[in-house]
Amino acid sequence: MVLFLEELNTVEFSDLVKKGALTILPIGAVEGHGPHLPLGTDMIQPMALAVRLSERFDAIIAPPIHYGECSSTKNLPGTISLSFDTLRAVVREVLEELYRQGVRRILVLSGHAARAHLMAQREAGKEVMKRFPDLRLMILSDYEIAYELLGKDFEADDGHAGDIETSRILQHREDLVKERPPKADIKKNNYMIKSDMGEFFPAGYWGDPTKATKEKGKQVDDFVFKELERLVDQLEKLAG
Amino acid sequence: MVLFLEELNTVEFSDLVKKGALTILPIGAVEGHGPHLPLGTDMIQPMALAVRLSERFDAIIAPPIHYGECSSTKNLPGTISLSFDTLRAVVREVLEELYRQGVRRILVLSGHAARAHLMAQREAGKEVMKRFPDLRLMILSDYEIAYELLGKDFEADDGHAGDIETSRILQHREDLVKERPPKADIKKNNYMIKSDMGEFFPAGYWGDPTKATKEKGKQVDDFVFKELERLVDQLEKLAG
Amino acid sequence: MVLFLEELNTVEFSDLVKKGALTILPIGAVEGHGPHLPLGTDMIQPMALAVRLSERFDAIIAPPIHYGECSSTKNLPGTISLSFDTLRAVVREVLEELYRQGVRRILVLSGHAARAHLMAQREAGKEVMKRFPDLRLMILSDYEIAYELLGKDFEADDGHAGDIETSRILQHREDLVKERPPKADIKKNNYMIKSDMGEFFPAGYWGDPTKATKEKGKQVDDFVFKELERLVDQLEKLAG
Amino acid sequence: MVLFLEELNTVEFSDLVKKGALTILPIGAVEGHGPHLPLGTDMIQPMALAVRLSERFDAIIAPPIHYGECSSTKNLPGTISLSFDTLRAVVREVLEELYRQGVRRILVLSGHAARAHLMAQREAGKEVMKRFPDLRLMILSDYEIAYELLGKDFEADDGHAGDIETSRILQHREDLVKERPPKADIKKNNYMIKSDMGEFFPAGYWGDPTKATKEKGKQVDDFVFKELERLVDQLEKLAG
Amino acid sequence: MVLFLEELNTVEFSDLVKKGALTILPIGAVEGHGPHLPLGTDMIQPMALAVRLSERFDAIIAPPIHYGECSSTKNLPGTISLSFDTLRAVVREVLEELYRQGVRRILVLSGHAARAHLMAQREAGKEVMKRFPDLRLMILSDYEIAYELLGKDFEADDGHAGDIETSRILQHREDLVKERPPKADIKKNNYMIKSDMGEFFPAGYWGDPTKATKEKGKQVDDFVFKELERLVDQLEKLAG
Amino acid sequence: MVLFLEELNTVEFSDLVKKGALTILPIGAVEGHGPHLPLGTDMIQPMALAVRLSERFDAIIAPPIHYGECSSTKNLPGTISLSFDTLRAVVREVLEELYRQGVRRILVLSGHAARAHLMAQREAGKEVMKRFPDLRLMILSDYEIAYELLGKDFEADDGHAGDIETSRILQHREDLVKERPPKADIKKNNYMIKSDMGEFFPAGYWGDPTKATKEKGKQVDDFVFKELERLVDQLEKLAG
Repeated sequence: MVLFLEELNTVEFSDLVKKGALTILPIGAVEGHGPHLPLGTDMIQPMALAVRLSERFDAIIAPPIHYGECSSTKNLPGTISLSFDTLRAVVREVLEELYRQGVRRILVLSGHAARAHLMAQREAGKEVMKRFPDLRLMILSDYEIAYELLGKDFEADDGHAGDIETSRILQHREDLVKERPPKADIKKNNYMIKSDMGEFFPAGYWGDPTKATKEKGKQVDDFVFKELERLVDQLEKLAG
Repeated sequence: MVLFLEELNTVEFSDLVKKGALTILPIGAVEGHGPHLPLGTDMIQPMALAVRLSERFDAIIAPPIHYGECSSTKNLPGTISLSFDTLRAVVREVLEELYRQGVRRILVLSGHAARAHLMAQREAGKEVMKRFPDLRLMILSDYEIAYELLGKDFEADDGHAGDIETSRILQHREDLVKERPPKADIKKNNYMIKSDMGEFFPAGYWGDPTKATKEKGKQVDDFVFKELERLVDQLEKLAG
Repeated sequence: MVLFLEELNTVEFSDLVKKGALTILPIGAVEGHGPHLPLGTDMIQPMALAVRLSERFDAIIAPPIHYGECSSTKNLPGTISLSFDTLRAVVREVLEELYRQGVRRILVLSGHAARAHLMAQREAGKEVMKRFPDLRLMILSDYEIAYELLGKDFEADDGHAGDIETSRILQHREDLVKERPPKADIKKNNYMIKSDMGEFFPAGYWGDPTKATKEKGKQVDDFVFKELERLVDQLEKLAG
Repeated sequence: MVLFLEELNTVEFSDLVKKGALTILPIGAVEGHGPHLPLGTDMIQPMALAVRLSERFDAIIAPPIHYGECSSTKNLPGTISLSFDTLRAVVREVLEELYRQGVRRILVLSGHAARAHLMAQREAGKEVMKRFPDLRLMILSDYEIAYELLGKDFEADDGHAGDIETSRILQHREDLVKERPPKADIKKNNYMIKSDMGEFFPAGYWGDPTKATKEKGKQVDDFVFKELERLVDQLEKLAG
Repeated sequence: MVLFLEELNTVEFSDLVKKGALTILPIGAVEGHGPHLPLGTDMIQPMALAVRLSERFDAIIAPPIHYGECSSTKNLPGTISLSFDTLRAVVREVLEELYRQGVRRILVLSGHAARAHLMAQREAGKEVMKRFPDLRLMILSDYEIAYELLGKDFEADDGHAGDIETSRILQHREDLVKERPPKADIKKNNYMIKSDMGEFFPAGYWGDPTKATKEKGKQVDDFVFKELERLVDQLEKLAG
Repeated sequence: MVLFLEELNTVEFSDLVKKGALTILPIGAVEGHGPHLPLGTDMIQPMALAVRLSERFDAIIAPPIHYGECSSTKNLPGTISLSFDTLRAVVREVLEELYRQGVRRILVLSGHAARAHLMAQREAGKEVMKRFPDLRLMILSDYEIAYELLGKDFEADDGHAGDIETSRILQHREDLVKERPPKADIKKNNYMIKSDMGEFFPAGYWGDPTKATKEKGKQVDDFVFKELERLVDQLEKLAG
């Protein structure tokens, strides 16, 4: 059974919190993912994982935060980016409120893995932990795990909307995958800071979407899920 | 056809924006709604209306903002409240980004109608309009329309999780409506500001949920939809 | 005897605080009120009521905050509007300081009744109450009471600088009421957010100033005062 | 004739602005001034000077800001202190709004002369001048002028609520001057920063209030007024 | 010749800026580095590189920012950590001011490589580039280059105050290297956010300081310098 | 022996803090000082004094803050000015961190004496003292002491980069003093706030640099040092 927080009422929520239920907070991004993947790609993936985790651990899934920090792709059509500070504030307040409501174990799972986006969440997490040191808090992107497959089962230079990501979306929402463009490369940025970081990223994706398959998508998801399972197991064992 | 922004890709989004498509931004709240209605009640209602509006006007539905400002119910189990400033920041940035992406007509539709919650959105809207005066922006809660029925088809003292709201959730998610408690009243607050405004609101709901029916829910929704249709018609006619 | 805080010295102030004296904080606005009423209209009215309340309850009148949030009339000549955040900060700090000085009962009385203006004060109040839950704090505009007369003793569509307001200023400062213009209407804004909300409000006032009389002004003030008396009575009775 | 902005209407205000009228913004403080002077002492003095300047130059007097930054006297009964940032914000916004309304010459006249209080105003002024370099803006305390008399007509170690200040209040509000305490000294602070700066200032005043006379008050005011006259003359002559 | 900005006067500075001189901004950290290395370790290293770059490219060295963001080592004796926001603000303002003064090429070189510390600088850089897109700005830590040697010339699990860092300080300030402790490990944090991240880092350093030699220090510095030379060459060639 | 914090390691720092060592925080400015003195003039002077104080009192010298608030000279070539708020934040955080690390006596010594620059530091100090009232904190500029010599050993109208300052730099860094320009005057600003305060200060310095000698520099430094010695003596004696 999947426990969506928004479908619970006050009584059901209180009971689960008393039992010490883990809460998962999925965070996405609204971001151009080439001409072939949907703007909500980064929400689809962590949500699918959250559903599996909820079933496996009787974990509550908090309503997702759909909008993330996407400054490096902001010039792609459809990208809607929050600022670093606002994303940090939203995440901090949702975590503080979950704590106030009695939740003591939280997994923040982000589908978008850009450095600033994750840092905003971790800075939020650090502020929350300073106030509430007995919270058990884990913040990561599924791509921090998935990218362990680069240079192994996938090409080393795969990335945004490339082989891995296209494969995963094929698995979950094949109906939303449109005609796939050929391989595209990313330019080295040499530590330059630009007003449009998309300069290093002209096609709006990198890697080779044509190689993607549903099966490879399942393989990645299973790999990520297994590691998440291990991480949550560990989180569950920590004294509260 | 319903146009969820998160299901569109860069090409499809660009095309719709070029055609001048209206974008609807649904805003909810995660908030205790008595023992009988789900915490996500305030997201279910505007989302259902957004879907009807999308079908009727080929409007894009932006990913919803699930979390709202709920300071007055913050002591109910399950309420997760953003601060005024953070909600204002999120709404301002999403509106600015939609504008940056070429959108020129936006309807912000909130399922939660608390004064501070709506004011945060309107303050955001004022800031956006100051920067981008050619945007056409409408911000409202479906309850600002629905409450025109109070003292007419519904009792005058109906409110949070009462007859109207229970009826509407019965219509959309009957599976989530649990055993309904008897009528509850709200106390007059006489302009007092309290650290726990829930004091005026001890049962966590007001009005009479036992009177609710699916049919009445449909009646309210149709009434609201008709007014929204009129408002959007007017928005569409404004020069862009 | 009227107790203006600015006329008290340290000894007199300490004595009154020890006795548990209520403090009234009058808040105004500097705002265009048609061609016939002064810019300080919204300060004159609550100050007159504060004086009556001070006499009746031995309440201290704190120095008034003359400037308010007037974004909707900002394009009228003479409107000087604080931002939402700055008004909120001023009110919060004055309330916190009164508390720090030992005051435990405060009535904030605003002559300006715009929604954002009052919300800024109430958000300030909520923050103060969170820190100091034993404070007894009431925040309102005299117009929240006065408008109960609309559709009764006054026309339903009376408003800014209309019949009621002109009558009240006639009572207090007849010398400042200049040639009165004819009835003016307000346009329905249909939830639109505009950079100039004055668009819905082209004459800079609404209602019919020509119907105003001094006697009606006294009637309104007496009505409001009676309700304020009841509210303050209640405030006085609350345990400190 | 004295031109109080709050007594003008939109038409009268517009006319004065078109003629290039100087606007004076009086700023006070709510602050303990020994057992003998009222808490509003720092508002009485600049207001009296503003009235003389208005008569002399047909200058508009904007509604005063009663509250100032008084951190060094915050532990005296009755002191209500704004923070540095909030005072700066209020002054900045009032100045910006006056500019937006067409005013091009402003004199900010503060009765309170504490360094942080004046710096907050000057920092506000700097921000405004950066945005609107054609504004002609003067910010000072009457005490920056009055203290030129120290070591001449008055003892060198006179200060807060001492001989000069008591004399001036005797002149304007003799009714509010209560039994005067004997001479009190200030301790050298040797650049120490304390949480309670009042430590250096144990009596809550310094100087000798018993020496004060109404005549000396008039003498100081005349001296200050003459210098203000010179300053405003100069301000009037600057190209707009 | 080394060009320290603080040793130049207005004339010399103007001349260099007119010639298009690159400016290097070294950023350090005050941070515990085991019992053997000085607290200013992270300032010594980039400053030494800045000196070599200044000699090689006639680049100006701006006064360094000694304090960085060190939240993960904050519990070590001597760590003085700025917040993320304050570090970001300082870097942003120094960059904006250099731009205002005519500088168009800037290399920010940080000796401390913690993720939040670098992100704060990059967020600052992004804000500056948004305002001044013609600036050529590079932000990096020398350790982003030096760590390319891990798993090659140095053990893969070397880190804070380990073999590489001790070697480099031996090269520059042998007098400050005290008795070296044995190898210490870092614990895997498994994405946990802790109020004290030092938990994963109990010895206050990791890697094996006993293996360090002056010669290895020179080897690392030469490797880093060569890459910096390549990067600055590229920066110099970019159109201004 | 001079104790630079950046040269100490964790063990040495802990020992000194346990012994109650005073910490000196030198603050400079990067600011045009005429054509003859270096931009870092305001860092050279307090650093030289800090070194003498460290030798005399076994005080720790914290890494200096090179950048200050220099809005009044911002148009001189080479001036790099932090905003008031950012300087205040940096100073506050460094003081708070020193306190967190166990330091209980701090002397902040600024070479730049502009009012806003010092006020930013004092406002920071006040905030820190509010949180940590047992800290012993002194904040001053060496020029607050040095200027006691004006009208005595030096001309009354000496100032920025004039006789005193040139003499002091001659003493410490004769190599950096270039050809000295003739006497320059400052204009009276009559309380005007300008976007470019340098208008009152057209030469970029005031006073007569040609009169400066190394000997006079030593005389000033000795005078300042003697007073600092007295102040620190007093600080040392205060109970901790």
